[in-house]
Amino acid sequence: MTVIKKLENIRDKNSSLLCIGLDINIDRMPDCIKKDSGGLLDFNKAIIDATKDIVCAYKMNFAFYEQYGIEGFKVLKETFEYIPENIFTIADAKRGDIGHTSKAYAKSCFEYFNADSVTINPYPGYDTVKPFLEYDDKLIFLLTITSNKSSSDFQRLSLQGEPLYKHVIFVSKDWANNNRIGYVIGAHHAEEILSIRHLIPESWFLIPGVGAQGANAKKIILANGGGPAIINVSRDVIYASSDKNFAEASRDKAIFYRKLFNNEK
Amino acid sequence: MTVIKKLENIRDKNSSLLCIGLDINIDRMPDCIKKDSGGLLDFNKAIIDATKDIVCAYKMNFAFYEQYGIEGFKVLKETFEYIPENIFTIADAKRGDIGHTSKAYAKSCFEYFNADSVTINPYPGYDTVKPFLEYDDKLIFLLTITSNKSSSDFQRLSLQGEPLYKHVIFVSKDWANNNRIGYVIGAHHAEEILSIRHLIPESWFLIPGVGAQGANAKKIILANGGGPAIINVSRDVIYASSDKNFAEASRDKAIFYRKLFNNEK
Repeated sequence: MTVIKKLENIRDKNSSLLCIGLDINIDRMPDCIKKDSGGLLDFNKAIIDATKDIVCAYKMNFAFYEQYGIEGFKVLKETFEYIPENIFTIADAKRGDIGHTSKAYAKSCFEYFNADSVTINPYPGYDTVKPFLEYDDKLIFLLTITSNKSSSDFQRLSLQGEPLYKHVIFVSKDWANNNRIGYVIGAHHAEEILSIRHLIPESWFLIPGVGAQGANAKKIILANGGGPAIINVSRDVIYASSDKNFAEASRDKAIFYRKLFNNEK
Repeated sequence: MTVIKKLENIRDKNSSLLCIGLDINIDRMPDCIKKDSGGLLDFNKAIIDATKDIVCAYKMNFAFYEQYGIEGFKVLKETFEYIPENIFTIADAKRGDIGHTSKAYAKSCFEYFNADSVTINPYPGYDTVKPFLEYDDKLIFLLTITSNKSSSDFQRLSLQGEPLYKHVIFVSKDWANNNRIGYVIGAHHAEEILSIRHLIPESWFLIPGVGAQGANAKKIILANGGGPAIINVSRDVIYASSDKNFAEASRDKAIFYRKLFNNEK
């Protein structure tokens, strides 16, 4: 079974576009969780146990693990291992380097962590992406437009009448098919999602920035128009409560977002 | 003492612009080195011992460590710890994310690894760089122009008559002064180095791609015109020999490059 099939299966089985971002932060752990690496792993496991029938994917942003050094890296590895086999995984590493360096990053994400997909920063061009594409059954999400204010510094600079981020799409479209390359589309800009969706109707979008980052989910769903998408929420789900019942509270929040993304009442 | 002063001191003490990139690769270890993480660390230590009076800096590209998982991450940490206090260190992590994620990456590079400097991918704009700048005595190298073929995919796209990589400079110049932000300038393009040097005569350049990547060192030195620069060589120095005398061979290669970069005969 291909990773795309796996993603479609779990999306359909759980009726969910929701991806939960497991952005660990020792300062935000519930009171009942130990403030050490064992505690961080226990926390992730509890969130996964409570939400695995509500999501299509889990996303691990490497930064939050790396900040805790070797201990954090270990939690990252064990979190990947704990996620049930049928749920899609995203190594949100935003790696971007060239040649044999990029190959080493691909080895880390796809062999060591065995992620189904990875986020990549496209700035150095095709050479960055090529070693990842050499794994023939993995999905790559190219960082295209981010949800932060300073995304205008470069991503929206105009080249021949089109913003740079659209050139990322124009150029990368020819690198591989829709089952191999998707796009990270920051969620603050519904009108941009609409226009990008028009450009690449069948590409997978990874849409972060919903929830704690505040994007208006309804507008985004509408703009996406039913195209293949994974919508990520991190802190708003995982830190739903700091009480003993934190996992249950996360589950409730996950159900809330699932409904919202499915446009249910 | 500031990190810039440290960098200038070691550059002057060792009369060297040479940075050695410790790009570990288990398949290229000398025969006498064990093919495990202990061996990789022994190798790095031997190279450092043999070259520490010849270099101004050591650069660790995180990819080569991450490919070996937790074991590799440990070698990375121990390599940072082993480098003598007076030698400048570069966390070549090319991280680039936003907001609290970028903050976590900065914590990893500057607190956990205690690097003097870091490489950053500027694509998401100022928000990526800001958390790194909050450490007031560290140097940031922005990925500007890379030495690979597909650097033309985006970095050389023309905006209002200037390539994108120059806009990275135009925009970032105002973020902080020359002691805080430097630039990664891929070494294959001497004419580009000349033109960038003209634009920012006093900024630090990290120039990779010399040596195994094949750039013409003499042209580059000339183009740089004596501006503040660190010139990196990785494989051509560290894999100078696979014999028992590998460290000595690396030292000889390092001396060769030091001379070349100093324009000595």
